[in-house]
Amino acid sequence: MNQALRIAQYGCGKMAVYTMRYVYEKGAEIVAAFDVNPAVIGKDIGEVMGCGRKGVKIEDAKHADRILKETKPDACIITTMSLMSDVEDAFKVCAENGVNAISTCEEAFFPWNSSPGITRELDEIARKTGCTLCGAGYQDVFWGNLITTLAGATHRITKIRGKSSYNVEDYGIALAKAHGAGLSLEDFEKEIASADNISESARQQLIEKGEFAPSFMWNVNGWLCSQLGLTIVHQIQKCVPQTYDKDLKSETLQMTVPAGYATGMSAIVITETEEGITLETECIGKVYAPEEFDQNDWTIEGEPNTQVVIDRPATVELTCATVVNRLPELIDAPSGYTTTEKMGVNRYKVKPLHEYVKTK
Amino acid sequence: MNQALRIAQYGCGKMAVYTMRYVYEKGAEIVAAFDVNPAVIGKDIGEVMGCGRKGVKIEDAKHADRILKETKPDACIITTMSLMSDVEDAFKVCAENGVNAISTCEEAFFPWNSSPGITRELDEIARKTGCTLCGAGYQDVFWGNLITTLAGATHRITKIRGKSSYNVEDYGIALAKAHGAGLSLEDFEKEIASADNISESARQQLIEKGEFAPSFMWNVNGWLCSQLGLTIVHQIQKCVPQTYDKDLKSETLQMTVPAGYATGMSAIVITETEEGITLETECIGKVYAPEEFDQNDWTIEGEPNTQVVIDRPATVELTCATVVNRLPELIDAPSGYTTTEKMGVNRYKVKPLHEYVKTK
Ligand SMILES: NC(=O)c1ccc[n+]([C@@H]2O[C@H](COP(=O)([O-])OP(=O)(O)OC[C@H]3O[C@@H](n4cnc5c(N)ncnc54)[C@H](OP(=O)(O)O)[C@@H]3O)[C@@H](O)[C@H]2O)c1
Repeated sequence: MNQALRIAQYGCGKMAVYTMRYVYEKGAEIVAAFDVNPAVIGKDIGEVMGCGRKGVKIEDAKHADRILKETKPDACIITTMSLMSDVEDAFKVCAENGVNAISTCEEAFFPWNSSPGITRELDEIARKTGCTLCGAGYQDVFWGNLITTLAGATHRITKIRGKSSYNVEDYGIALAKAHGAGLSLEDFEKEIASADNISESARQQLIEKGEFAPSFMWNVNGWLCSQLGLTIVHQIQKCVPQTYDKDLKSETLQMTVPAGYATGMSAIVITETEEGITLETECIGKVYAPEEFDQNDWTIEGEPNTQVVIDRPATVELTCATVVNRLPELIDAPSGYTTTEKMGVNRYKVKPLHEYVKTK
Repeated sequence: MNQALRIAQYGCGKMAVYTMRYVYEKGAEIVAAFDVNPAVIGKDIGEVMGCGRKGVKIEDAKHADRILKETKPDACIITTMSLMSDVEDAFKVCAENGVNAISTCEEAFFPWNSSPGITRELDEIARKTGCTLCGAGYQDVFWGNLITTLAGATHRITKIRGKSSYNVEDYGIALAKAHGAGLSLEDFEKEIASADNISESARQQLIEKGEFAPSFMWNVNGWLCSQLGLTIVHQIQKCVPQTYDKDLKSETLQMTVPAGYATGMSAIVITETEEGITLETECIGKVYAPEEFDQNDWTIEGEPNTQVVIDRPATVELTCATVVNRLPELIDAPSGYTTTEKMGVNRYKVKPLHEYVKTK
């Protein structure tokens, strides 16, 4: 392709500050931007990005259909929320206009196993209009391709264990509470863990109805099994409280979490496959003790065992760079809802993005 | 492809014990085996593998031409030695017979920048007969695709630093001496470091004549720059002595290395590119202190910084699994000497190898 990529930004919050700058710095441009927040609607995107005016006004998302029709961008970056039911409308308006779309929505990474109804519907529209929809971000590399790349150096895998942690203090009070931080173990069991105490058939019904709330690793395990060619027999998720042996102050909760109380939780997903490979992956969100820091730690067990550790990953930048670097592959990918394990590994882009687009 | 892959093994030493077993365990079979060592010629490969008879006799490598013509294997695994000048004959006899070949030879990973003459010649033969030649092994994943996968999550790279270490005590005395282990720093300078004190043009002449001895990372930096689309401006290598602040016993050298003497060396390769990205990669081989162990430690510097660490990698198994898992991609790759950065990331093979071959 010999023209700069023209990109729309859907959702102009924290992630968009990075994705929009990265788009410009990779020789592409933002041609439209949407949000629902009255505080940003009407602003120039440069104000959000913290740089000079760019001449692109953030529009109310309710006008997205008309504006996408007018601007016909090469792709849209959706950075609004974390569940498919939340980003469905954004994906749909893109798909209906034949605009490729990529989202940081965590469920969007592999929504086939948690919201198959919405995903099938979006897939159909995108196939008809000839565009591609997908999810990407931190998990695309650090819970996805990093692991399958190491798997390629393994003779026989018996188990894949993954563990990723974050500090709930870095986010708002809602997240801390959703992680059960500050609860006694009894209350944690009642208020948090019990939601996943359901039978497999009950969960399957929720999934079919689009009412299941997947933890991040639920979709990751689906992606990994798809990439590795594994057939899932069972998959469960459960929430396990995390504790610390001393009292811990939480700024976010404005309280001291007593020793032995829940500092947060680990959302564990366990997948059994026909091929005899088990995936046991967990996301740990908690109030950190002074010596703790973010870690991404995976082990492939089998012949041989291999452990990979990434300390203090810069998740925001990594997420946004992954999404922006994926734009050429997104444009080149087959039409439909095409998850990234079907696109190959994301490549570093040293040249302007459009120079990597092959099909246009 | 709907028939089990038929593989030849060229070199029946330590690596072959693993590659041959992996071939069988991935639903393929060994149909020919070669060596030059009279101690193994004439043996059944099962004796080398440490299992029952397989009905395949190890033949003198001088008969390889005739036997490859008779058996027409789908691919040959070459595990003999570490320099292109050493494996040239093995690659050539495969290429002349149209047999795809993959080697653990370290230089073979990216021989274009160290032995361009031999590589061009092999490339021409392979294009004529329609087969593919390449090098693979530990570096394919741990110094190659692992790094470029993380690069794909990076917005802007300024530098890539890599560091991989091994204990010279795990190998023979020749290797320990080649690493300068046991020398005073003065003697190290004279006997080891001085070889790389040559001008760029003098090195280039050695390279053109096929007389340059690349350190492992010389070829790795070439591979990384090719994968990332970088243009090399300068590349140097140098050997830096490693020391320890206490005396260290060496079993292999049968001596005590005094504190402050060379325990081994780091072979550092520094590459500058037109795009402003620097690669600084080193291979450290030394007599380990009690607290040291093998490590593979890489950092991508830029926006953002990301460090990945692999402790105690099982290099032998990882090397052999990588080579065997690469067989389908080797068979499907374009003809010629096709280095693996052109094949995409190696995938784990959960099904028999032949089920992954697309072009046959
Ligand atoms: N890429 C990687 O990641 C990686 C990892 C590990 C090893 N390697 C490399 O792989 C190579 C093989 O390692 P290894 O441990 O298996 O070595 P090894 O145990 O010495 O086995 C090599 C075998 O090949 C034979 N041989 C040597 N030259 C030959 C020739 N021209 N034709 C036929 N056979 C020949 C040797 O015979 P003699 O004993 O008579 O010489 C020996 O039987 C080495 O160069 C090693 O450095 C690479």
